[in-house]
Amino acid sequence: MKERKLTKKVGTPPGTLIYTGEKMGTFQINVFNYNADSYIEQKMESVESCFKFKNSPNVSWIDIAGLYNTEAIDEIGKYYNLHPLTLEDILNINQRPKLEYFDDYAFIVLKMLTYNNEMREVQSEQVSLILGNNFVLTFQEDIGDVFDPVRDRIRNNRGSVRKNGADYLLYALTDVVVDNYFIILEKLGEEIDELQEMVVVNPSHEMIQDIHTLRRNLTELRKSVWPLRDVLSSLYEDEMQLFKSASVYFRDVHDHTIQIIDMVETLRDITSELLDVYLSSVNNRMNEIMKVLTIIATIFMPLSFVAGVYGMNFKYMPELGWKYGYPTILVVMLSIGIGLVIYFKRRKWM
Amino acid sequence: MKERKLTKKVGTPPGTLIYTGEKMGTFQINVFNYNADSYIEQKMESVESCFKFKNSPNVSWIDIAGLYNTEAIDEIGKYYNLHPLTLEDILNINQRPKLEYFDDYAFIVLKMLTYNNEMREVQSEQVSLILGNNFVLTFQEDIGDVFDPVRDRIRNNRGSVRKNGADYLLYALTDVVVDNYFIILEKLGEEIDELQEMVVVNPSHEMIQDIHTLRRNLTELRKSVWPLRDVLSSLYEDEMQLFKSASVYFRDVHDHTIQIIDMVETLRDITSELLDVYLSSVNNRMNEIMKVLTIIATIFMPLSFVAGVYGMNFKYMPELGWKYGYPTILVVMLSIGIGLVIYFKRRKWM
Amino acid sequence: MKERKLTKKVGTPPGTLIYTGEKMGTFQINVFNYNADSYIEQKMESVESCFKFKNSPNVSWIDIAGLYNTEAIDEIGKYYNLHPLTLEDILNINQRPKLEYFDDYAFIVLKMLTYNNEMREVQSEQVSLILGNNFVLTFQEDIGDVFDPVRDRIRNNRGSVRKNGADYLLYALTDVVVDNYFIILEKLGEEIDELQEMVVVNPSHEMIQDIHTLRRNLTELRKSVWPLRDVLSSLYEDEMQLFKSASVYFRDVHDHTIQIIDMVETLRDITSELLDVYLSSVNNRMNEIMKVLTIIATIFMPLSFVAGVYGMNFKYMPELGWKYGYPTILVVMLSIGIGLVIYFKRRKWM
Amino acid sequence: MKERKLTKKVGTPPGTLIYTGEKMGTFQINVFNYNADSYIEQKMESVESCFKFKNSPNVSWIDIAGLYNTEAIDEIGKYYNLHPLTLEDILNINQRPKLEYFDDYAFIVLKMLTYNNEMREVQSEQVSLILGNNFVLTFQEDIGDVFDPVRDRIRNNRGSVRKNGADYLLYALTDVVVDNYFIILEKLGEEIDELQEMVVVNPSHEMIQDIHTLRRNLTELRKSVWPLRDVLSSLYEDEMQLFKSASVYFRDVHDHTIQIIDMVETLRDITSELLDVYLSSVNNRMNEIMKVLTIIATIFMPLSFVAGVYGMNFKYMPELGWKYGYPTILVVMLSIGIGLVIYFKRRKWM
Amino acid sequence: MKERKLTKKVGTPPGTLIYTGEKMGTFQINVFNYNADSYIEQKMESVESCFKFKNSPNVSWIDIAGLYNTEAIDEIGKYYNLHPLTLEDILNINQRPKLEYFDDYAFIVLKMLTYNNEMREVQSEQVSLILGNNFVLTFQEDIGDVFDPVRDRIRNNRGSVRKNGADYLLYALTDVVVDNYFIILEKLGEEIDELQEMVVVNPSHEMIQDIHTLRRNLTELRKSVWPLRDVLSSLYEDEMQLFKSASVYFRDVHDHTIQIIDMVETLRDITSELLDVYLSSVNNRMNEIMKVLTIIATIFMPLSFVAGVYGMNFKYMPELGWKYGYPTILVVMLSIGIGLVIYFKRRKWM
Repeated sequence: MKERKLTKKVGTPPGTLIYTGEKMGTFQINVFNYNADSYIEQKMESVESCFKFKNSPNVSWIDIAGLYNTEAIDEIGKYYNLHPLTLEDILNINQRPKLEYFDDYAFIVLKMLTYNNEMREVQSEQVSLILGNNFVLTFQEDIGDVFDPVRDRIRNNRGSVRKNGADYLLYALTDVVVDNYFIILEKLGEEIDELQEMVVVNPSHEMIQDIHTLRRNLTELRKSVWPLRDVLSSLYEDEMQLFKSASVYFRDVHDHTIQIIDMVETLRDITSELLDVYLSSVNNRMNEIMKVLTIIATIFMPLSFVAGVYGMNFKYMPELGWKYGYPTILVVMLSIGIGLVIYFKRRKWM
Repeated sequence: MKERKLTKKVGTPPGTLIYTGEKMGTFQINVFNYNADSYIEQKMESVESCFKFKNSPNVSWIDIAGLYNTEAIDEIGKYYNLHPLTLEDILNINQRPKLEYFDDYAFIVLKMLTYNNEMREVQSEQVSLILGNNFVLTFQEDIGDVFDPVRDRIRNNRGSVRKNGADYLLYALTDVVVDNYFIILEKLGEEIDELQEMVVVNPSHEMIQDIHTLRRNLTELRKSVWPLRDVLSSLYEDEMQLFKSASVYFRDVHDHTIQIIDMVETLRDITSELLDVYLSSVNNRMNEIMKVLTIIATIFMPLSFVAGVYGMNFKYMPELGWKYGYPTILVVMLSIGIGLVIYFKRRKWM
Repeated sequence: MKERKLTKKVGTPPGTLIYTGEKMGTFQINVFNYNADSYIEQKMESVESCFKFKNSPNVSWIDIAGLYNTEAIDEIGKYYNLHPLTLEDILNINQRPKLEYFDDYAFIVLKMLTYNNEMREVQSEQVSLILGNNFVLTFQEDIGDVFDPVRDRIRNNRGSVRKNGADYLLYALTDVVVDNYFIILEKLGEEIDELQEMVVVNPSHEMIQDIHTLRRNLTELRKSVWPLRDVLSSLYEDEMQLFKSASVYFRDVHDHTIQIIDMVETLRDITSELLDVYLSSVNNRMNEIMKVLTIIATIFMPLSFVAGVYGMNFKYMPELGWKYGYPTILVVMLSIGIGLVIYFKRRKWM
Repeated sequence: MKERKLTKKVGTPPGTLIYTGEKMGTFQINVFNYNADSYIEQKMESVESCFKFKNSPNVSWIDIAGLYNTEAIDEIGKYYNLHPLTLEDILNINQRPKLEYFDDYAFIVLKMLTYNNEMREVQSEQVSLILGNNFVLTFQEDIGDVFDPVRDRIRNNRGSVRKNGADYLLYALTDVVVDNYFIILEKLGEEIDELQEMVVVNPSHEMIQDIHTLRRNLTELRKSVWPLRDVLSSLYEDEMQLFKSASVYFRDVHDHTIQIIDMVETLRDITSELLDVYLSSVNNRMNEIMKVLTIIATIFMPLSFVAGVYGMNFKYMPELGWKYGYPTILVVMLSIGIGLVIYFKRRKWM
Repeated sequence: MKERKLTKKVGTPPGTLIYTGEKMGTFQINVFNYNADSYIEQKMESVESCFKFKNSPNVSWIDIAGLYNTEAIDEIGKYYNLHPLTLEDILNINQRPKLEYFDDYAFIVLKMLTYNNEMREVQSEQVSLILGNNFVLTFQEDIGDVFDPVRDRIRNNRGSVRKNGADYLLYALTDVVVDNYFIILEKLGEEIDELQEMVVVNPSHEMIQDIHTLRRNLTELRKSVWPLRDVLSSLYEDEMQLFKSASVYFRDVHDHTIQIIDMVETLRDITSELLDVYLSSVNNRMNEIMKVLTIIATIFMPLSFVAGVYGMNFKYMPELGWKYGYPTILVVMLSIGIGLVIYFKRRKWM
């Protein structure tokens, strides 16, 4: 569990830049600078080379991946006038999604989710977005993200992203992050479908854990979406008047988060039902087993008793001397047996 | 599950018109244009032919069925000045019921429910309503709806729909959608009654799934009604002063949604009880089985033991030589058997 | 379940007067007209004859029973200027308790509860109250109600009902309806007491359903009281200044509804406990049965084995020839039996 | 259950003074009249003799015990100008804790709790407090209360009660009532500790009811404290400016009620856990029993079969004639037995 | 349970200084007095010697440990003008975290948590903080705390604590208390991980109690953090304008408490799942046992019956005389046995 790493920070003064994730990966800065007519895309080699975009009249999107490089983050933060606590929050990847307004920028934390097929686990990566005057900074834990559709739309001038300002870019980035949650939901939905079939056909003890894994994944998803809903509702209510044109779009993303929450709740209900069905299946099997035992015992105990009686060694047992004693007793036993079978059939035990 | 289709849209720019339902069915435009004295009803062949009603002094109801035809929707949207996001929402059939005010129209999303008897499933179809100055646009996924009572009232001038404006028409349409929920509730209520009898008479493992199907249908219904309640309460509070005369009627529909929510909760409680009763029935059966086993074993084990004793081959076993040894032991066995039966009767096991 | 009848109304225009209850019973109008000094009580023959009380300087209470007579209701409604939706609500007996203010009257819906001893069911009858300038109209589904104490107080000039206006009469009527809930609670409390004893002494499968019937009755009661609480709190806050003198009394009734809600919750908790106790009793019985089986099997299986050994037909089995072989083996068997009994006593299984 | 007695009042006009408790006990009026320098303590013989304190410049505390004497209560109420509904509430001992402001007094209802050791039941007595200009009236169901510490503080001039006004006296009385809840909590906590030990050592069927009794007692306590919290928070917010100096003290009592609610919740959680532990213990015992049965059956069934085989009477069974047949077969049986025991030990069943 | 000690205080006048914890430990006063340039650290011998810091122009942190010394606390309280109720709250260690504003100071109660490895219990110590003009008083139950990181930062002038005022010091102290909760969470997380493995590998009855201990520890933690969240949110909203510069930092700690609450909820969910898994494991074992019993009984009961039949002593049993009767019957028995084993394998019981 990731939360343990938080203890790294215990007792340090606020503003101390400690990255609470795993220290590995590549550091990379990628810049888009565009207006309606043209765009530049550049992979930066040094931190300094991205400073020039701060005062560009065009919209700039500076995408920084690789939080392990705390010195670089610190440098960028200082140049762009970010508050020390903002920088600390960017590096502390245990944040909940949140929105904070500062004097000359807005700070948004989002969770980018991916589904790890092998571990059957929803994994989350923190993305911090800074919306300044005419730029957006994005900080990712590592390279690899869900932003490619936005990049393509900038490159190919599809949609209206090039025609709008930095607030619209912020919207577009938030939108793909949220859209991506639907893909996670789809995966989890498929797993639930699979389990649902298996639990009826062949219930096994391991399913309990599969069901709980699913449940935990849904909880993970919900934890990313719940606070996001509040973030988005304050974005579209937009009291700070930062997002003139994009406000109506944020309402749209907000609607999506509510849809996601609804779906998560539905899937959670289904997993609860799965548990019920599983337990009922197990119970049913137990009943089956008990029935077999009872039928066998009820048929053979009386029969064995009869055989036992004629196995007694009393001198004077007239039946033993009868010529048709043995076949008679066999017929009697058969009748008892058949009688009991009929009785069980009637009670629907067989 | 429908929600998966949402992934079609991941990463597309906002306002991209993608229909998230199944692409099939017929496209059809049906127009009513009426005032207190007369009415026209027309099936339109082309999209353009319904444009002329925009500035008609009478009230117009333009009913568009067949969302798969995205080009037609787009054309209508543009002519009636609908916001791109509104058009996108009309085509994305995974919306929750909602109400959005735009500059010159109000946009309402409703869910029309039908009960599929074969699949025992509540199915929902999205209806989007646009209330403009003196027209109502309705967008349905496919042809076939619950609006016939309203059409009849317009044709026959029954009720006051012809005497009122577009806001009253909007109310009338909303009202039949909500009234239809009562029919669904009735169906589900009947199914619950059936199950309730069966669960006592003859509980079987499949009932667990029937109970869960019922529960999911109730959840589906609730998901359509809950947000609708909020929509209607803001319609009757009517801060935008769009609905002068109809406001008191919307309060009435609002009351209906609260009634529906109440009933859904009651039915959900009953399904929970069904589960309890089922589990208790199963438990009871298990007890019955165990009792039979115990009674049989308790009666025949001692008897078999006695028979076993007199089946031993010791040379000196005086009882074996007694003349009345055999009948005596039979009487003893009978007494043991009867004694145990009496004991079980006393403990109410038989 | 009553709610099904709602489907009668699907698709009808608002204001259509359809009675959703069972069409039977007697129609009857009963009028009280009183002031501090005198009173008139009249059973009306025709609807029209009660119109004259509208402008009487005294307080009038016009009590109409028999909603099946929709024409009469319509006529009265028109004379007293009731809104069509009010009339519709009066006839639709599936309303929740509610309070609605209209221009010149207040409209209150209450539920009058009775306990049907045979069906062990709480049954509800809807009462609609209209408070006008100096009159109160009450509409009941059928004749037979809980208002007799109020009638007596008017006739005998007991309490202050004759000295006060129509608002006080409204209070007095509401008060007896709510007081009557305490009687229902008492009945349900007695049933719970009975069940509580039986569930310990002699738990049977039918109790599950008794418990659920109780629970449903409590839910029915709660559904009548919950919304009533809000009705009463807005009556005593009285923003409309309709109830000058009676406001403090409505606070009193409001307190009663809160007491009732508290008691209902307590009784619901007790029924949950009953279920637990029942299940534990059943479980306990199962354990008892299993113990008997195990004790019997554990004692007689080894003994039968020993008998079986000496029932073998080997030629050379020295014990069989011993003079005291048989009594010795009997003593051995007895020792095994007693030993096991002691063992079971120690483990507290016997 | 006390609530039944409420039905005594059904249908009576408001303000009818009916005592809903048990009619017995002693009637007694006890008066304190004090200022910082001196105090008078008097047991009153007649109701009238306590009237003189109404206009005393000192603070008076008139403590009336014995609500069965409704005439006396009525007389006092009239002299002190209490509203008829206040008097009714004083006599109706089924009130929830509440605070009501009247023109010249505040009316507070509290619950005084005692723990009945024999019945293991939390019993509550209603105390009504009237705070007037410079007097406090307290009405108790019967003599015997928790106010002795306050009496001692007045007598011995300890603390600041003598130096302050009637509002401080009200605070002091409320404070001891609430402090007394901690004693109840302690008792219940001790009972829970006892049960917690027993449930592990020797779980028995009766514990379920002990656990439920505990739970109901906690619920009783909670029902007294929850509404009290609201009473106290409006006392310390003190919008009516009645409690100038005592406001900060009421905040303190308010904090205590929150502590009590917290503790009650904790104890409720523990009782839930007790139930889980009990059920798991019972389950565990069942498993133990089943294991014993299975072990015995698994060992002796095969052995008995072997013995049965050599008990068959076939003429040609070579083993029977072998010299060492019998000891060989005994060794075989012993090996089977030992083998099965080892198997069970390995599976940890023994 | 600590709460019992509260009964010590029942009935005492408010402001009576009674320490509700255990009376032992050392009394110690430790003072820091610092500005940006220099600092003094002193262990005080007498209470009076810390009075001089009250009017120092530098920031003072006076840390008092050892609440058992009520006289010393009283003296300090009087000198620093603390309200009697504040002093009482400091000594009553059963407070919930809270914030109270007084005329010239703010009073904050926090809970410092430690994890006792032996008793596997989260233990809490109450810390009361007084924020005055330019000083902070901290009162601890006993020596030993989590403040060392702050002390080091003051001594070494790390971070900005020396450069800021008393409000920042208050923040720094609150921050380490909250950071410490992450360590507790980590411990509990580790315990849950351990249990999670054990519950699958080797479920035992004791685990139920381990799970409940964990749950209670999480509840303890939650009880410390929930009210703290409100404290912190009012600190960062800071209506009193006491915390000019530190407000943004308190928002940061507030975010941490929300993270902690989230994690606690997650861990609570996992413990619930543990219980499910445990119960399912136990159930599974029961099923295994029953299967073994049933298989054994089903195989050997018919076989024993066959042997019993040929053990009967009828004179005319032709099979007994057959030469190959014995081997034939052995083959028949073997076939029955093998047939049943195959049957069980097919039903997946073996």
